[in-house]
Amino acid sequence: MKDRPTLRVCLTTALIPTFEVRDSIAVVIDILRATTSFCVAIDRGASEIVPVRSLRECRRYARLGYLTAAERGAQKVPGFHFGNSPSEFLHADLKGKKIAFTTTNGTRALWAVRHAKAVVAGAFVNMSVLLQYLRQQAQPVLLVCAGWKDHVNLEDTLFAGAVATYLEGEFRIADDATLIAMSLYQQAERRKKYYIQHSAHFERLIQLGMQEDVKYALRQDLHPVLPLYRDGALINALQETHV
Amino acid sequence: MKDRPTLRVCLTTALIPTFEVRDSIAVVIDILRATTSFCVAIDRGASEIVPVRSLRECRRYARLGYLTAAERGAQKVPGFHFGNSPSEFLHADLKGKKIAFTTTNGTRALWAVRHAKAVVAGAFVNMSVLLQYLRQQAQPVLLVCAGWKDHVNLEDTLFAGAVATYLEGEFRIADDATLIAMSLYQQAERRKKYYIQHSAHFERLIQLGMQEDVKYALRQDLHPVLPLYRDGALINALQETHV
Repeated sequence: MKDRPTLRVCLTTALIPTFEVRDSIAVVIDILRATTSFCVAIDRGASEIVPVRSLRECRRYARLGYLTAAERGAQKVPGFHFGNSPSEFLHADLKGKKIAFTTTNGTRALWAVRHAKAVVAGAFVNMSVLLQYLRQQAQPVLLVCAGWKDHVNLEDTLFAGAVATYLEGEFRIADDATLIAMSLYQQAERRKKYYIQHSAHFERLIQLGMQEDVKYALRQDLHPVLPLYRDGALINALQETHV
Repeated sequence: MKDRPTLRVCLTTALIPTFEVRDSIAVVIDILRATTSFCVAIDRGASEIVPVRSLRECRRYARLGYLTAAERGAQKVPGFHFGNSPSEFLHADLKGKKIAFTTTNGTRALWAVRHAKAVVAGAFVNMSVLLQYLRQQAQPVLLVCAGWKDHVNLEDTLFAGAVATYLEGEFRIADDATLIAMSLYQQAERRKKYYIQHSAHFERLIQLGMQEDVKYALRQDLHPVLPLYRDGALINALQETHV
């Protein structure tokens, strides 16, 4: 019997250097809100999203005709087209548009795993599509929780636990972080909102009036796309396989 | 009403640099097996344990008349008095003896938090004494899971979750890592052995024939001592307060 591919969880961006990523598919997870917003923007027709690390770099893309999205400390940065709220992208016409995107945590995590065999973005809004892709690839998987400023967070860990729980039969759970995330998900499954409401980042977002973003980010399978990071940009992997 | 002191969890030694430790009591946790063994050795009468980072340093202490304990890759290193098994210390006469001690994970974690306001060692075998101390101090607490070679592990996270669950009323849970550890403990509470049996480090120890050490490390309150790290050595904080 062929060994099942391994499944691991990296609980925060700060731990990425402790993992070997080259042989794995890295799934970057930043539920509140970067990877949720990536899915929305791509589902609304954006042809590519370029994650950049600095506001300066984002402005440079603006001069090349890109739309720009910039968030710092959970807030939209003035002078850019978008912040990091899924709702902004949901109501924009993005057909064929290119977006340069910079956020506090999610874009840092993408950058840090760029040497992985493949890099995709995961969120509750594209969960089933992600699961299907990972099953088809049958390669080692590293679920990379972006976390919040180097710290572990509840919502990313919860999602990693959900993915691991669904993939447990076909993959080999290869570290304790995955077991911990699965335990969290299994305990929280029917009480996702209750759990998220106790998270530190949730409190920050609520204080900024972003309840709707949180609700949206916890809904499942609203956007059946798979943002794939290739040559410095996120594109929809599903369209690509049909070309 | 006075604000309750904060309680945080650092899930692995690799994350210690992301925490501010100066204002907190740091509780170093390495259930399998360093902090368990520290408690046993101190309860058996050891007057001090000097955690050192290298085998060379450990040998230097031997020349000063210290007993020595050295573990690498879960195994006792030849040429030293002890490895890192609680059972070795349990059956030794350590009354008034000084021990130099080097292990893979636990001693690294102690070193990394040495600038904290106070540093103590926690394990299931001294849990009630630890809880009582933390309640009496009423200072911010950082529970520091040593982890395994920079990775998060199940048994240290489980213990952090137990401590946080018991202290929840008197402390303010201040990060998501603590919530995750508490969720793990609450789900695992009655099935501690089941959970630990799924841990990666457990498998390593079993392969090395160390089932008894694992069982011992999960028993509660066998050694009512509190190893306190001061001036480079662990001493029993409880004796100190009675002097």
